[in-house]
Amino acid sequence: MTLPKALAFDVFGTVVDWHSGIARETATFLSSNLPSISPEAFALQWRALYAPAMRECINEARGFVVLDTLHHETLQQLLTNYGLDVSQIHPDELWRLAHAWRRLDPWPDVPEGLARLRTLLPVVTLSNANVELMIAMNRYNGLQWDALLGAEFAQTYKPDPAAYLTTVEALGLKPQQLCLVACHHSDLAAARDCGLMTAFVHRPKEYGAAPAPDADYAQHWDYEAESFLDLAQQLSHPM
Amino acid sequence: MTLPKALAFDVFGTVVDWHSGIARETATFLSSNLPSISPEAFALQWRALYAPAMRECINEARGFVVLDTLHHETLQQLLTNYGLDVSQIHPDELWRLAHAWRRLDPWPDVPEGLARLRTLLPVVTLSNANVELMIAMNRYNGLQWDALLGAEFAQTYKPDPAAYLTTVEALGLKPQQLCLVACHHSDLAAARDCGLMTAFVHRPKEYGAAPAPDADYAQHWDYEAESFLDLAQQLSHPM
Repeated sequence: MTLPKALAFDVFGTVVDWHSGIARETATFLSSNLPSISPEAFALQWRALYAPAMRECINEARGFVVLDTLHHETLQQLLTNYGLDVSQIHPDELWRLAHAWRRLDPWPDVPEGLARLRTLLPVVTLSNANVELMIAMNRYNGLQWDALLGAEFAQTYKPDPAAYLTTVEALGLKPQQLCLVACHHSDLAAARDCGLMTAFVHRPKEYGAAPAPDADYAQHWDYEAESFLDLAQQLSHPM
Repeated sequence: MTLPKALAFDVFGTVVDWHSGIARETATFLSSNLPSISPEAFALQWRALYAPAMRECINEARGFVVLDTLHHETLQQLLTNYGLDVSQIHPDELWRLAHAWRRLDPWPDVPEGLARLRTLLPVVTLSNANVELMIAMNRYNGLQWDALLGAEFAQTYKPDPAAYLTTVEALGLKPQQLCLVACHHSDLAAARDCGLMTAFVHRPKEYGAAPAPDADYAQHWDYEAESFLDLAQQLSHPM
């Protein structure tokens, strides 16, 4: 198998553990305002509102709106569903909570694994996160990328093919020369449909104890790894 | 004076010494093919073709074309002007020369100065370089940025106001919260017209012994520094 010329990474779930991070970042607010809701359940429910919010932007019903804004909107939607009057919450507090998605820690293998992968190939984000969110998150958790590409650069969200193909083009590559690294079968399937190479990284705790919602897209990928360190090993010593 | 929230950098001239780098990277080719042309003069003449080539892309006569491609075209234009038949040069050699702009060294103060500035504020490129060029250059010279923004992200070249304002927007800032760092008065003047803060860094050797072409835009800027270290000092200890 020919090696890729660059690696593009999904971020939420693949690089960072959003589930435990969102639970941690919302725990204090919930204990004061919605004490019956567990932060872990809140994190799952907030994440579940993400796909429909993005789809509105892909389908041009709405046009492209950055992810920070969608997080701010879906947060208010969720709190309203729980019976809170969001107009009574200070706007700064709502934004601070919406920006919880900027304060997420990488999985334990990521700092060293990403650094090793970067010695082999350029590493870029191909995330639905906007640039401002990604800059803030990288400054929070110390990760280093060669470029931040993906949704905002393409002005559309994954799984729209344009999100993948604009990233390919910015790197001066052919689709088959770029490998998407992701823990989501659905993301990898969309990338494969665009001609990209694919690397699945297993993140069994992404949803805490809950199952991943895209199991029906499961298939064999070009690379399948237990961690970024494992992926670096496979790319360094191809079979 | 209020401190900026982020710093956006011009790259060619401000961060890297293109004049000596292009002379070094073309010297072997010139000694074999155009021995009467000094590499230093060649570098200046190649650079002089850059502004008119970009202007065609700004004015929509042509639409946006990435800088690597413009370098490849202006190289052939310059060699043809010197009487060479470019069809006799191997295509790989022409691209290798066009990519000389990816193999440029920073000024001596830059590695430490940029690292210090980055501890204070996010640092992004606001260059006319395309993403692929900037990634290759950063991997060549080891510089670390929070994001690569500017021309390709905005799909237009500086000094088009959209190049500055798209960068501002991607960072979630107001124009007056972003400071352009550049050694070119013309670039700073265009940024100031868009409402940005401005930091001039003196690079007296940018054109070797030749004078800078934009002296008529000279004026006082929000910051004026002798080096990135000096700028870091001024931002750390504002007056």
